[in-house]
Amino acid sequence: MAARSGRRPGDSGTRDAIRAAAIEQFSERGYDRPSMRSIAQQAGVDPALVKHYFGSKHALFVDVVELPFDPALVIPALFGGGGRDQIGARLASFLVSVLEQPPGRQRIIGLVRAAASEPEAARMVRELLTREIFARVVEELRVDDAALRANLVASQVVGLVMARYVVGLEPLASMPAEDIAAAVAPNLQHYLTGPLGAGTDT
Amino acid sequence: MAARSGRRPGDSGTRDAIRAAAIEQFSERGYDRPSMRSIAQQAGVDPALVKHYFGSKHALFVDVVELPFDPALVIPALFGGGGRDQIGARLASFLVSVLEQPPGRQRIIGLVRAAASEPEAARMVRELLTREIFARVVEELRVDDAALRANLVASQVVGLVMARYVVGLEPLASMPAEDIAAAVAPNLQHYLTGPLGAGTDT
Repeated sequence: MAARSGRRPGDSGTRDAIRAAAIEQFSERGYDRPSMRSIAQQAGVDPALVKHYFGSKHALFVDVVELPFDPALVIPALFGGGGRDQIGARLASFLVSVLEQPPGRQRIIGLVRAAASEPEAARMVRELLTREIFARVVEELRVDDAALRANLVASQVVGLVMARYVVGLEPLASMPAEDIAAAVAPNLQHYLTGPLGAGTDT
Repeated sequence: MAARSGRRPGDSGTRDAIRAAAIEQFSERGYDRPSMRSIAQQAGVDPALVKHYFGSKHALFVDVVELPFDPALVIPALFGGGGRDQIGARLASFLVSVLEQPPGRQRIIGLVRAAASEPEAARMVRELLTREIFARVVEELRVDDAALRANLVASQVVGLVMARYVVGLEPLASMPAEDIAAAVAPNLQHYLTGPLGAGTDT
């Protein structure tokens, strides 16, 4: 989303321009189709500079794979402390606030599409989620099956991103974001604190 | 999943072999990477035959994009008639029965990955779901916001496919299928018959 042309090839400016172009292309075209050349072109730099700074498309992807928020701050605020019966509502509101802003949406869509496109990208996304999100949720929720609960929440979030932003199912795609938050919140709450049925620890 | 080699190039046998190879490749490698050549190779036929029978990769994709069950039979059985408070449980059991069989799982994963990979495939998947599933759910559920409810259910199903089969989040990916059905059923039920919050028709 950063500026795409007329860039001066200063060192950090160039890296940032390449990163911004990579995020945009991975988000809009998946992991497979963007090339180091197409990313360089969009960033307005020579393809050799992409190779110089990042080495490979894979390494560039690893570099830009990150969440559009700081989980070390966000997860304790959402999942820790009191008001456990409101976690679903808090989480739904937070997700909407991230997804309804173009930069956050673009990053999340890029992660989802990359995860769907090939096993290596899926592995990186899985490791990112496990390390940055699930581990922290487990720590904050303090219940035995917290990792499974976090997985289930992730399944709903990924599915919502696919249905609303990637596939564009109607009427979901055109609904006001706050209505979606209201519809989804009780289900997130159920996954996080409700009974999960036979075979689980609760 | 059908036999992959040693095939005799009879007319319908050849078409079926090409279709089976296409389903497998679209499922495993997404929409972008399989080529008419790679599909022909897997089917054990000359690439010219793929072009002869299907015209283009796009047309071949359209030909094999279908659901692994007959929605005209399944949707009325799941959503129509009595026992509305058990729709979530019925639907969850049905989904598990489809997804835990390799052919059904392969088709659904193929749809999800194709939808994530590029806008044209996403449009086809959207049209397939709208025509074959959502329209029928709306007819059976007979509530004003049934289309939105069907979208929300689809978001959870797509997300589950992504989380369990494509990204392989743990422990979700290793859980017994019936435990997942039990965890997901109440959420499907909420989407189908529960209050969706402000801004909806219920």
